[in-house]
Amino acid sequence: MTYCVGLKLKRGLVMAADTRTNAGLDNISTFRKLQTFEVAGERIFIMMSAGNLAVTQAVVAILEEEFEHPDEDDENSSLKTVPTMFHAAKLVGETLKTVRQGHVDQGLSSDAFSASFIFGGQIGTEEPRLYQIYSEGNFIEAKDDTPFFQIGEHKYGKPILDRVANQEMRLGEAAKLVLLSFDSTIRSNLSVGMPIDMVVYNTDNLSIDRVRRIEQDDPYFRSISAKWSEALRTAVETIEEFDI
Amino acid sequence: MTYCVGLKLKRGLVMAADTRTNAGLDNISTFRKLQTFEVAGERIFIMMSAGNLAVTQAVVAILEEEFEHPDEDDENSSLKTVPTMFHAAKLVGETLKTVRQGHVDQGLSSDAFSASFIFGGQIGTEEPRLYQIYSEGNFIEAKDDTPFFQIGEHKYGKPILDRVANQEMRLGEAAKLVLLSFDSTIRSNLSVGMPIDMVVYNTDNLSIDRVRRIEQDDPYFRSISAKWSEALRTAVETIEEFDI
Repeated sequence: MTYCVGLKLKRGLVMAADTRTNAGLDNISTFRKLQTFEVAGERIFIMMSAGNLAVTQAVVAILEEEFEHPDEDDENSSLKTVPTMFHAAKLVGETLKTVRQGHVDQGLSSDAFSASFIFGGQIGTEEPRLYQIYSEGNFIEAKDDTPFFQIGEHKYGKPILDRVANQEMRLGEAAKLVLLSFDSTIRSNLSVGMPIDMVVYNTDNLSIDRVRRIEQDDPYFRSISAKWSEALRTAVETIEEFDI
Repeated sequence: MTYCVGLKLKRGLVMAADTRTNAGLDNISTFRKLQTFEVAGERIFIMMSAGNLAVTQAVVAILEEEFEHPDEDDENSSLKTVPTMFHAAKLVGETLKTVRQGHVDQGLSSDAFSASFIFGGQIGTEEPRLYQIYSEGNFIEAKDDTPFFQIGEHKYGKPILDRVANQEMRLGEAAKLVLLSFDSTIRSNLSVGMPIDMVVYNTDNLSIDRVRRIEQDDPYFRSISAKWSEALRTAVETIEEFDI
């Protein structure tokens, strides 16, 4: 499995993905699931993937190729030239659909090739946008009511996001919240593992310069993990016992 | 879906189950999933179920019938006469297997009739025991390392149990913890719903007298739900921001 979270805030985007992939419990590897695209000063994209690794890697490879060699006759065929984030999300969705269709055409079940993306970015003066792109190639955009998306093993880390996430957060605060959500997930589920790749993007920066790979022994992560356990225990204690 | 939690502590057992059942999102009902059996001063059993409601109700109905009319020639055929908790768990598992087999014999897929139980209790001077009984009729017992079992929609409420649950807790403390775990689950997942049935059992009491149905508007539950949100937000704030 996988765990990826993307938050869209007034101040920008915070996106993070784990790096564990597994084909069975005895076949575990580390793969980067967070990719970035950038034309500095003009546009940036961050994408994170869950699902069949062959499918998601193929999608990323095609998008990268088109990014390097855009078709000058069709601006919607490359992330380098798409005019808006909506068209960018559409391109990712269509690429995913095409890759999956290629497998299904061979007579294989489409379920085995399911994959999904969280896709965020900003183009020019348009505000940053964040999308969740489904296996079928369709997508939804994060709006005010729900400023975050999760893909993969999302349940363990959802309660804290449901309670705390809001659009007004500072980016450092949101980065902390995302890491606490990861900590809950990693502690309860073996299929999600360190290191974590994280990007924090400031609105209108139009360049990706805040990128971090957070390793198992990262002092900040270790300290918040310990402090969070302590804070949770304290929080439980502050509430009066149930007198049944 | 369903959410049930059972904790086995030195001081006794704390068990709680939600009451929502659904066949699709538009067909929701309330059914009791927590059942108790008692011969005061001699033995008590508490069982909670998840999965196919027709299967779990049939299992409970058979166990109740056998409890009322035990076969005098076979002490292991009724919860009223089984000599130990191990044999009690075995009886529940075998009853579950028999009920499911009846459906599969009709040519139906066994997956559709999956069901599981958390089963706890105490017989005479034996210590209280807690079991998780699987669809196949086999079972495991809670031991010192992991003092709790969950069935149903267990992921949302697991992080807090993983961090806080331990065998030394007072029963009122454990009851509070279980309700916080329910609050996280109910807030994030529609298929788990109030009211919650709860039993708190003191070791060696050999009678079930602490039973509560906690309704939607229960003042204690409302207050801990609000306080918990507040405490979580405060806990997040106490941790320094991530400077990426």
